[in-house]
Amino acid sequence: MAQAPPLPARFPFWTEEKLRIADTDMNGHINNGAIGAYCEAGRAEVLHEIAGPPPDRSVAMVVARVEIDYLRELHYPGRVRIGTAVSRIGTSSFGLEQALYSGEACFAAARSVMVVMDHQTRRPIPIPAALRDVLTRLEPIA
Amino acid sequence: MAQAPPLPARFPFWTEEKLRIADTDMNGHINNGAIGAYCEAGRAEVLHEIAGPPPDRSVAMVVARVEIDYLRELHYPGRVRIGTAVSRIGTSSFGLEQALYSGEACFAAARSVMVVMDHQTRRPIPIPAALRDVLTRLEPIA
Amino acid sequence: MAQAPPLPARFPFWTEEKLRIADTDMNGHINNGAIGAYCEAGRAEVLHEIAGPPPDRSVAMVVARVEIDYLRELHYPGRVRIGTAVSRIGTSSFGLEQALYSGEACFAAARSVMVVMDHQTRRPIPIPAALRDVLTRLEPIA
Amino acid sequence: MAQAPPLPARFPFWTEEKLRIADTDMNGHINNGAIGAYCEAGRAEVLHEIAGPPPDRSVAMVVARVEIDYLRELHYPGRVRIGTAVSRIGTSSFGLEQALYSGEACFAAARSVMVVMDHQTRRPIPIPAALRDVLTRLEPIA
Repeated sequence: MAQAPPLPARFPFWTEEKLRIADTDMNGHINNGAIGAYCEAGRAEVLHEIAGPPPDRSVAMVVARVEIDYLRELHYPGRVRIGTAVSRIGTSSFGLEQALYSGEACFAAARSVMVVMDHQTRRPIPIPAALRDVLTRLEPIA
Repeated sequence: MAQAPPLPARFPFWTEEKLRIADTDMNGHINNGAIGAYCEAGRAEVLHEIAGPPPDRSVAMVVARVEIDYLRELHYPGRVRIGTAVSRIGTSSFGLEQALYSGEACFAAARSVMVVMDHQTRRPIPIPAALRDVLTRLEPIA
Repeated sequence: MAQAPPLPARFPFWTEEKLRIADTDMNGHINNGAIGAYCEAGRAEVLHEIAGPPPDRSVAMVVARVEIDYLRELHYPGRVRIGTAVSRIGTSSFGLEQALYSGEACFAAARSVMVVMDHQTRRPIPIPAALRDVLTRLEPIA
Repeated sequence: MAQAPPLPARFPFWTEEKLRIADTDMNGHINNGAIGAYCEAGRAEVLHEIAGPPPDRSVAMVVARVEIDYLRELHYPGRVRIGTAVSRIGTSSFGLEQALYSGEACFAAARSVMVVMDHQTRRPIPIPAALRDVLTRLEPIA
């Protein structure tokens, strides 16, 4: 990731997480895996916003791919804010873009691919029109 | 633990944690280990309150023992509140008592023993008078 | 825990776990929560031994209480061995005793209470005779 | 990731991890974050192989980027094997390629970027010749 980190103004949806001692590792900073858990919190909350709690959803949505760029070290204690946007809407999958901030500093950027599946068959299906509609409203700003 | 769970009014110090998907397990509820991490968050914040950040502390304080009673299952999503009190002050150790609440319901109760040690020798030393003083102010209420 | 740590010869059942970087924390050692996860691995494997995989069990068994004494610091990398014994058999609950070793050194000792419940009602029921029988065979040795 | 998952024969270096209950989540499978921890274990062990334990290393090596494709669900209990190869050697960074197997099935594939830094300045520096040499020996096989 050679380009500048994304600006907060790009993201229509926000999640806040609180750092834990169990998130740190022997390098004295927050472990990469905990940063993945903050991204997961952001994904879970945006899906809840657009499709309700998992049992109420007309389709299943599973993570097929995650990429994370670690831009700066993060240290306990503190809180972080995770911005999320829907960066791509395909036939049966969509992309999420996320940036994670500690104060004003962006310490990580992430992209993920979510696949829309039938609850029973667990196979990909086209994104229903109603879901497509709400995904559109969460595209990156400006 | 046959007796009734502790009442919130007993605790002078409070911490809030937010549940994560990574805290859940295949039983569909919050894993016992995550409940231990919420207790650790409460301990870390009460120590910060009484002794400042770790590098500024005149002594080291380490956990020697933890007991947790799991009273009810806890489910994602949500927030929990952890009440902490200093239940015992000994020569070179002190006890913490904690109760964890989801809304009004107490889902876990914990007791731990903290040992006060010299930073260099890593051996127990008597609790300094100033620390003993602030510990006294965090005894259980009523 | 003033008495000497338990000797390995006491335990009829053994589990091995491998330390992970994500198990460490900013204190440079293995986090207390990871030590709780090693105890959980030991409990899960002993229950599998005595009652088969969870879907095949005639009753549900849930952890009601865990106590852990942290005796020494543990450092990455390495493997640990967890000894487990059935220390008490009651009407509808039983106790497990565990000790955790790194090489020859016991770094933690744990006791837990498991409650036997009906799968449907999720209420405690008497331990079935067949389960009581296998629990007896896992009592501490000498 | 449209192409076929990588074959085990491609990887010169192998790590084994054991699944834990704490690695599962409420979806009944192994959580994505735990899969990230298995990749981290593979990275840590390959770095130990090529450069010794962290305090002995002539340079620091930090993860700048991780991408993971989740190809199949993974369920507790079990063990997984993580194959690792050095897929790219640049001026001051190198790439790792990993594939994770449960039995014969590849359930995840990962790529990461490691940056070589000076211990004191924490800024990127050219990969020393001796390190470059050992990295070359871990390139993908055929």
